[in-house]
Amino acid sequence: MVDYKLLAALAAVVEHAGFERAAAALGLSQSAVSQRIKLLEARLGTAVLVRSAPPQATAAGQRLLNHVQQVRLLERDLQTDLPQMADAAGRTRLRVALNADSLATWWAAAVSAWCERERVLLDLQVEDQDVGLRRMRSGEVAACLCAAEQPVAGARSLLLGQMPYLAVASPAFVQRHFPQGVMAADVARIPAVVFGPDDRLQHRFVQQLGVTGEFDYHLCPSSEGFVRMLEAGVGWGMVPALQVTDELQSGRLLQLLPGQALQVPLYWHYWRSGGQLLAGLTDELVRVVPGLLAPA
Amino acid sequence: MVDYKLLAALAAVVEHAGFERAAAALGLSQSAVSQRIKLLEARLGTAVLVRSAPPQATAAGQRLLNHVQQVRLLERDLQTDLPQMADAAGRTRLRVALNADSLATWWAAAVSAWCERERVLLDLQVEDQDVGLRRMRSGEVAACLCAAEQPVAGARSLLLGQMPYLAVASPAFVQRHFPQGVMAADVARIPAVVFGPDDRLQHRFVQQLGVTGEFDYHLCPSSEGFVRMLEAGVGWGMVPALQVTDELQSGRLLQLLPGQALQVPLYWHYWRSGGQLLAGLTDELVRVVPGLLAPA
Repeated sequence: MVDYKLLAALAAVVEHAGFERAAAALGLSQSAVSQRIKLLEARLGTAVLVRSAPPQATAAGQRLLNHVQQVRLLERDLQTDLPQMADAAGRTRLRVALNADSLATWWAAAVSAWCERERVLLDLQVEDQDVGLRRMRSGEVAACLCAAEQPVAGARSLLLGQMPYLAVASPAFVQRHFPQGVMAADVARIPAVVFGPDDRLQHRFVQQLGVTGEFDYHLCPSSEGFVRMLEAGVGWGMVPALQVTDELQSGRLLQLLPGQALQVPLYWHYWRSGGQLLAGLTDELVRVVPGLLAPA
Repeated sequence: MVDYKLLAALAAVVEHAGFERAAAALGLSQSAVSQRIKLLEARLGTAVLVRSAPPQATAAGQRLLNHVQQVRLLERDLQTDLPQMADAAGRTRLRVALNADSLATWWAAAVSAWCERERVLLDLQVEDQDVGLRRMRSGEVAACLCAAEQPVAGARSLLLGQMPYLAVASPAFVQRHFPQGVMAADVARIPAVVFGPDDRLQHRFVQQLGVTGEFDYHLCPSSEGFVRMLEAGVGWGMVPALQVTDELQSGRLLQLLPGQALQVPLYWHYWRSGGQLLAGLTDELVRVVPGLLAPA
């Protein structure tokens, strides 16, 4: 069989983003961790890590991490049947990639009871859909929540629901830029806030208004920072309706063009061979998420 | 002089995270952008981009981006003196790396008036301090806000203030894990929430309580998701006092061990040759940030 001591060293260096912390987590010296990685590379005849800061898995290393993740999930099932096989800590770590807006809104409420019941520690990774699915393909994460439907090889995807997004801005911003009332044709002439280069929601909204061409925008890759930027009157932007319930009710934010929302689908991608634990999380999400996404 | 058409193509590909969007932003065909990059590489005799998704600057490419950023800031000063030199859009883009918690709390309120006055579009990058300072050194960002004091070569650093962090958890979590009241020695025995591998705040807090050894933790790299995880009772964690004023007041979160806070310094790093615009932003931050960080 494979020497899992070597694979565990590789996984620890990637998960803890460094040799020193990996060594602390494994209760080994740093040189012992280095030796295990070198031995693994000697056996494979190829590098498994790029020694950057933080260290990154090569293609071969990613294939090994994929294997480690799957073995860990299967071990989890084994330990349910044979509790004496459980290691001391007793908590499983599950790595999931998800979009920032789900994490900023409904995610914690959906999974907290399940985490407590199953004694799972989550290792969450905020990624846009392309990167999230790529990390799933390479075995760095066990599941991925995103807007894309197409599953990667060996995985399934499930539609959990739709997240409505609204175009909002602060009252002062609306007053300054739309003293005569909000006109669709003017929305593209004032600065927006955009989450990142892959966030096309503002572009889609402007297109939906029938306006063509480029517009000015700030880039702000943080869900909460995004809402703060809108409140401070830096620009307008598309936010999940769930995230600004209070702000809209208190009047700290106003909806531009009420009735014009964008629906973003949420797909849950998970490995078919992910064991009972991942299947249980999938069942829990299918059960609770529709209620959390529905309008209050 | 340098052919800035080529450098602008390089900057656009990196800033828009792709050739197709860079082409759209520059109003060029994608093959024209490719040709400019190839011409630049032929002149230099070395690659400036790794053709990954998204494309990444090589060391040579980063040095060129650093130069482009500085030239743009100097052009901004020129346009203030000679407005006829301003390009059509009239807005300057300023790229800043900052910590997630500042962006989730006081950042937008500090810069919104300045952005409007100076007609600046912000391109914010959420990075922990080591990555932020490395991106500053490589010229990818014009300034960096982080907890580290030591400036990179060619830059200055300024202490803007201290951000107090509190250890908090939900009432249900406290009830479940500390039915007899919160004991310092027990804090390390229950799951925490940690922002990422570089977040040592929870570890420092546990050490400050005189407890040694490892503890279990979830990883959640999102400021707002972090607070949602704590509210849902997934674990305890350290959050900026500024971010949970409402939650503490309404009782949705409780402070573990009141009186035990951690102070995190905030340093503003900026290029010495960053021109009037960056100097103006620095003055604005020095003026307004102390008031925003002070307890309400």
